[in-house]
Amino acid sequence: MKVFQDETVPVKPVEMQGAVGCRMRCLIGPEDGAMNFTMRQFEVSPAGHTPQHTHDYEHEVFVLEGTGQIVDGQGQVHPLRPGVVVFVPPNELHQFRNTGPGTLKFLCSIPHRSTG
Amino acid sequence: MKVFQDETVPVKPVEMQGAVGCRMRCLIGPEDGAMNFTMRQFEVSPAGHTPQHTHDYEHEVFVLEGTGQIVDGQGQVHPLRPGVVVFVPPNELHQFRNTGPGTLKFLCSIPHRSTG
Repeated sequence: MKVFQDETVPVKPVEMQGAVGCRMRCLIGPEDGAMNFTMRQFEVSPAGHTPQHTHDYEHEVFVLEGTGQIVDGQGQVHPLRPGVVVFVPPNELHQFRNTGPGTLKFLCSIPHRSTG
Repeated sequence: MKVFQDETVPVKPVEMQGAVGCRMRCLIGPEDGAMNFTMRQFEVSPAGHTPQHTHDYEHEVFVLEGTGQIVDGQGQVHPLRPGVVVFVPPNELHQFRNTGPGTLKFLCSIPHRSTG
């Protein structure tokens, strides 16, 4: 098995169009032997946000730190704080926003059949 | 999408043989529309532990609260604290133990092809 502290994994900027102040760590993925799904950790700076986008695979999200919002496919805004769980089904538009004074940090796992 | 606080999900005792002081919430699963993997949250009371067991599917784990240990398939003990990530590959013996004064709380996601 592999056991390690999250912060020992290098963090990389998210360079996707529409991302502002976003960084990502791949915590567990195919190179670790994970065959089915990948666990990623995102950090969003104050006033930053992820792209408002959609894709054909789901997100399973758990908020670790900070406060923010997720905007759903109907444009509704849902508050985020530690312990909030989000399931984003495939093909639903979504955007994470940091509205707080500190880093917004969350886990976001995706299936390996995902294309990006 | 679904957005909710973790603690709004009812917690259930883990009644598997060998489990002591363990409770579980299914945060995201097939009934939510998740097609590929399930996100669960475990709570282990002080001095409690999960069964020392093995199965043919992996665990992707993130420690949220508390301190403890995971014992690997070679009998080696790895410390757990918030932010520790664990990948348990299929068929490796493992056991989570709470060695601290408070609840040990962690996420543990599994693929849907798992049999139990």
